[in-house]
Amino acid sequence: MSSQFIVGVDLGGTNLRSAVVTEDKRIVSRASRSTDAEKGPEAVEDAIQACVMDAVEESGLGKEDLLAVGIGAPGPMNWQTGVVYSPPNLPGWKNVPLADDMRKRLGVPCYVENDANVACYGEFWLGAGQGAENMCLLTLGTGLGGGIVTHGKLLRGIDGTAAEIGHLKVERNGRLCGCGATGCIEQYASVTGMKKTALEGIALGAKTVLTDMMGNDFTQLTGKMISEAADQGDEYAAWVIEETATWLGIAISSLINLLNPERVVLYGGMIAAGDRLFGPVRKVAKALSFEVPGNRAQIIAAELGDDSGVIGAAGVALDRLRGHY
Amino acid sequence: MSSQFIVGVDLGGTNLRSAVVTEDKRIVSRASRSTDAEKGPEAVEDAIQACVMDAVEESGLGKEDLLAVGIGAPGPMNWQTGVVYSPPNLPGWKNVPLADDMRKRLGVPCYVENDANVACYGEFWLGAGQGAENMCLLTLGTGLGGGIVTHGKLLRGIDGTAAEIGHLKVERNGRLCGCGATGCIEQYASVTGMKKTALEGIALGAKTVLTDMMGNDFTQLTGKMISEAADQGDEYAAWVIEETATWLGIAISSLINLLNPERVVLYGGMIAAGDRLFGPVRKVAKALSFEVPGNRAQIIAAELGDDSGVIGAAGVALDRLRGHY
Repeated sequence: MSSQFIVGVDLGGTNLRSAVVTEDKRIVSRASRSTDAEKGPEAVEDAIQACVMDAVEESGLGKEDLLAVGIGAPGPMNWQTGVVYSPPNLPGWKNVPLADDMRKRLGVPCYVENDANVACYGEFWLGAGQGAENMCLLTLGTGLGGGIVTHGKLLRGIDGTAAEIGHLKVERNGRLCGCGATGCIEQYASVTGMKKTALEGIALGAKTVLTDMMGNDFTQLTGKMISEAADQGDEYAAWVIEETATWLGIAISSLINLLNPERVVLYGGMIAAGDRLFGPVRKVAKALSFEVPGNRAQIIAAELGDDSGVIGAAGVALDRLRGHY
Repeated sequence: MSSQFIVGVDLGGTNLRSAVVTEDKRIVSRASRSTDAEKGPEAVEDAIQACVMDAVEESGLGKEDLLAVGIGAPGPMNWQTGVVYSPPNLPGWKNVPLADDMRKRLGVPCYVENDANVACYGEFWLGAGQGAENMCLLTLGTGLGGGIVTHGKLLRGIDGTAAEIGHLKVERNGRLCGCGATGCIEQYASVTGMKKTALEGIALGAKTVLTDMMGNDFTQLTGKMISEAADQGDEYAAWVIEETATWLGIAISSLINLLNPERVVLYGGMIAAGDRLFGPVRKVAKALSFEVPGNRAQIIAAELGDDSGVIGAAGVALDRLRGHY
C-alpha cells in the first residue's frame, strides 16, 4: 500500500475545508478554516495554503508524498487552466489563476473544478453514486446546482459549463429566473423557489402559521421555517414542501428520460426534509418517466455530508494527475 | 489502405437501406429494398440479408473483407444482446434475437442499435457533428426522437434507453403524451405537435387557408399542408411554425445548459421548413441559455440526408467491433 496522498479542498464563501485522501480512497485527516473572503484573493490563497498544510500535518504523512491538490471552487471558471473568473461570493476576484498560484505555493500540481461538479464527483467516487456509470447530483440550496457523470466521467461539455440542472425549463411562461430566462426549475425546486411558492399563496390569503413565524414580514421567511411549520402540523407548509417536491420530480423525470442513470443523488440543506421531500419526488419522477429507466433510477440522499466536496476535489485531482478527465 | 469494410443497415418499417462503408469512412455502394414488414420477422431478416449482399456485390469488394454489419432498428431493444422487443412498426416481432440471427446468416459479427442513436452517430462520424466531442441530434418527424454524444461516445445510459429528448417536460400541465406524462416536448415540437397547435387555434376560429386545404376535416391535416400554407402567405400557418419552433428552442436551451455541446443537429422531415424553423429555434434557444454555452452551440441541419442511418450503423458496428462503446 502506497503512502502517497492527495489533498482535497472545498472553497466556500465563508468556510474552507481540506482533507488528506489516500490513493485507495481513505480519508486520513481533515482541517478547516475561515475563508477570509472579504480580505481578497491573496488572503484566500494564504488560507488555502494553511488549510492544506494543517491537514497534511494532522495526517502524520510526509509532505514529500503529497501528489496533488484538488480545489472545488465557486464558478464561473476555466477548469482546464484553473482560472477563476469572478464568483459572486468571492469579492475582489477577477480572473485569478488559482491553480497556478497554488502550484507555486505548494510545489505540487493543483487542479480547480466547479464546486457542484466536485460534490457530484465525491458522491460518485466514494458515496451514494459508487459503482454507477451514469449519475446526476442535484444541490438543493438557495439555488439549484448540479453535476452529471456519463460514461463513468464528469460531464463538463466543451466549455466546462455543462450540468446546469437548475436551468432546465419546466414551464414556458413560468417564473423569471436570475439567468434571464423564464420557467427554470431553480425558481421552483430550490429554497428560493420554495419560499416563492409559499409567499404566493400567503399573498393570496392562505392560512398558515408561517405568517406569524415571519412576523408578517415576507422578507423574513426561511426554508427552515417552512420545514418546522410542516413538522408542527401546518397543512399549508406541508403542501408547499409537496409542491416543491413535485416540481423537482418533474425535472428529475426529464433527467431520467435523457440520461438513464443508475442514481439521482440529492444533496444540500433541503434534503433534511427527508420523506416529506423524497416521497413525492420519487412518486412523481417515476410516474412521468419511461418504465425501464424510471424503475432503474434510484433517487437517494447524498451520503458523505460535508465531505462530498473535499473527497470529490481529491478524486478529480487524482484523475487529472493520471490523465483521466 | 485496407480494403476491409462494414455494411450499415437502416431498418425502417417500410424501407430498408444498406451501404458499404470502408474503415476510412467512405461510402462505396448503396442498396435498398422493401422491408416486407407485414410478412413477419423471418421475411424481414431475409430482406436484410439480401440487402446487405446487394450492397456488397455492388461495391465490387470481396465478401471475405466484410468485417461486420451494423443495423439501426426501431426500439425498444437491448443494444448489448441485439434482441429487438416489439417495435410498433414491425408487426409480429417479439424478442427477436436480430444480432444473433444475422450473424448466423452472414457469418460476421452483427450489431443492433436504436435508429435515432444510429442517425446521431452517422452525423457525428461523418456529417454535421464531425469533430465535436459533445452533440445532440433531434429527429423531427411524427414523433421527436434523439441521440446524444458525450465524451465522444454515444450516450446510452445503463439500460440503453437514454436520449429520449422528446420526453423532456416543458410544461407542467401541458398536453397529454402517449408515454403517459403531460407536457413532453414531443407534443409541441414534432409534426404531431405542430398539427395539434394548428387545430387548437382553428377550433377556436382562426382564419386560415388550412381549413379549406384539409376539406374542413381535422383528421386530414398534414405537416406539409402547414408548410405550404405558410409559403403561400397564410399568416396563421406561419405562426404555427413559429410557435412550434419556439417550443423546440425552449427544449434546446435546456439541452444546451445541461450538455454544453458544440452542435445541436436537427434531422427529419420537418427541417425542410428551413429558415422559418431554424430562425426562431436559434433565437429562442440562445436567449434562454447561459451565455457561454448558448454562443457555443451551433444549431444546424443534418448533412447526410437519407445516409445518416446507414453510415451511423456502420460506424457503431466498427466501434463495437473494436471494443469502443
